[in-house]
Amino acid sequence: MLISGLGLIGSSIARTIRDGDRKIEIIGSDPDDDSAQFLLDQQIINIRKSFEEAAIMADFIVLAGPVSVIVGQIHALQRLSLKPDVFITDVGSTKKTIMKAAQPLLAKGINFVGGHPMAGSDKSGGRFGTPNLFKNAIYFLVGKTQTNRKLADYQQLLSKSMIRWQPITAAAHDQLVSELSHLPHVVAVTLVNTITDSLDEKSIGLKAAAGGFKDTTRIAASDPTMWTTIMMNNTEQISRALSQFQQHLAKFQAALDTHDEATIKAFFARARASRKSIDERK
Amino acid sequence: MLISGLGLIGSSIARTIRDGDRKIEIIGSDPDDDSAQFLLDQQIINIRKSFEEAAIMADFIVLAGPVSVIVGQIHALQRLSLKPDVFITDVGSTKKTIMKAAQPLLAKGINFVGGHPMAGSDKSGGRFGTPNLFKNAIYFLVGKTQTNRKLADYQQLLSKSMIRWQPITAAAHDQLVSELSHLPHVVAVTLVNTITDSLDEKSIGLKAAAGGFKDTTRIAASDPTMWTTIMMNNTEQISRALSQFQQHLAKFQAALDTHDEATIKAFFARARASRKSIDERK
Repeated sequence: MLISGLGLIGSSIARTIRDGDRKIEIIGSDPDDDSAQFLLDQQIINIRKSFEEAAIMADFIVLAGPVSVIVGQIHALQRLSLKPDVFITDVGSTKKTIMKAAQPLLAKGINFVGGHPMAGSDKSGGRFGTPNLFKNAIYFLVGKTQTNRKLADYQQLLSKSMIRWQPITAAAHDQLVSELSHLPHVVAVTLVNTITDSLDEKSIGLKAAAGGFKDTTRIAASDPTMWTTIMMNNTEQISRALSQFQQHLAKFQAALDTHDEATIKAFFARARASRKSIDERK
Repeated sequence: MLISGLGLIGSSIARTIRDGDRKIEIIGSDPDDDSAQFLLDQQIINIRKSFEEAAIMADFIVLAGPVSVIVGQIHALQRLSLKPDVFITDVGSTKKTIMKAAQPLLAKGINFVGGHPMAGSDKSGGRFGTPNLFKNAIYFLVGKTQTNRKLADYQQLLSKSMIRWQPITAAAHDQLVSELSHLPHVVAVTLVNTITDSLDEKSIGLKAAAGGFKDTTRIAASDPTMWTTIMMNNTEQISRALSQFQQHLAKFQAALDTHDEATIKAFFARARASRKSIDERK
């Protein structure tokens, strides 16, 4: 079992697998000494190796770096003599780019399934991973998922987390996350920047921020590099989602400017019902 | 001590005062039987009375209902024979409307100070109050705050919460909260409505929502009536804040549409630094 990329997601996968099976050998690969050493010390990974050295001996390869790194590694894997029954998967936040990169691997008959666990945090780095990160989470799977015995083995390794596995096409995935994940991220970041601009000169400023503001903008503290990569890989879908959002916002502002109390209240009531239904579903 | 309005804020004030002084008599007033009975059972309030009956015997009156109710009660107080040294304050989310309503009281020499604790929750109702709601929170004060002995007594009653008292003008308050509280609220609500529209027909839909989406939209589950009142009372400031937000969003979308990676990354990096500074301040 090779896990390449020992950040929040990769280290959480390692922790989840370790929790379910104390004996499985997990090889970790990451350019960051701190995360790797931390996970070695905690006995979450057994050994640290370079990506290429570990890849040729692995039965399972999990690519858990940023999307750009995943794409590079998929290209590298095509040139390596992998084990014939190796199972390769990734955890990248956009799937069209990755499935396209994986076409040559698939053409060679190598078992690759794209993956994306819907879990995250504003914290990044291997120290912040937790075996609970994927508890009851949706985990998207793209590609050959039926009758894929090695995929079933991988799912078994993560079975402690009660993950809700969800097959989806790459295109449907990228549209869905543009709405559920990328749009909220851009909105939270824009909110922080708007308010920072306006409050910079005021003595009270941001220190008066209460819980509502903090919740709404928590994800704006996330890693800018990772999110920039996501923007560059799902650009059209995110732009489309932004336009939809702006249309809704313009409608609300029109109601506000005309003191249309009934429309304003209906707008709030609808959001409340929808938002409550998410928590109740759990 | 009369607390009128035993919802989240009013009941939390009652709890904070009760925590600091077991013996003080707290009269609660609220049309909702459930909240009142719950707080009586918990011995957080000593007795429940009608507003007018309690107001004439109180040394302190805290108006903790919705803004529209507060305004009506301020009008009612003008007609009552209050104790000569009574101290009256409110907790309404907008201050210009309330300070305007309080002018006749102030003209009669009655000690009124507008107030607004920057704390809240997506939960509403007296059952959800907690003495921790105001811990380290900013609490805005509008009006005569220097050398106001009765205000100092009120602050003493809440001293367990380490509240950060902040004098401000009504106009500056309403602008500040339009950015720190009302804009984030509208944005969260709009996000939920946008996504609900788009995902309604999809089988996966909202159930794939991860922690980031949930955090960002948590406040969208708040009471629509309360928030509609806020919109009707701070309309111009909120509309102005929405326009600023839309300008920032349009700039971001332009960078996205032109694949301007450097601008996108700088936008994320700036928000991260600003957002992190809020948590570090605590």
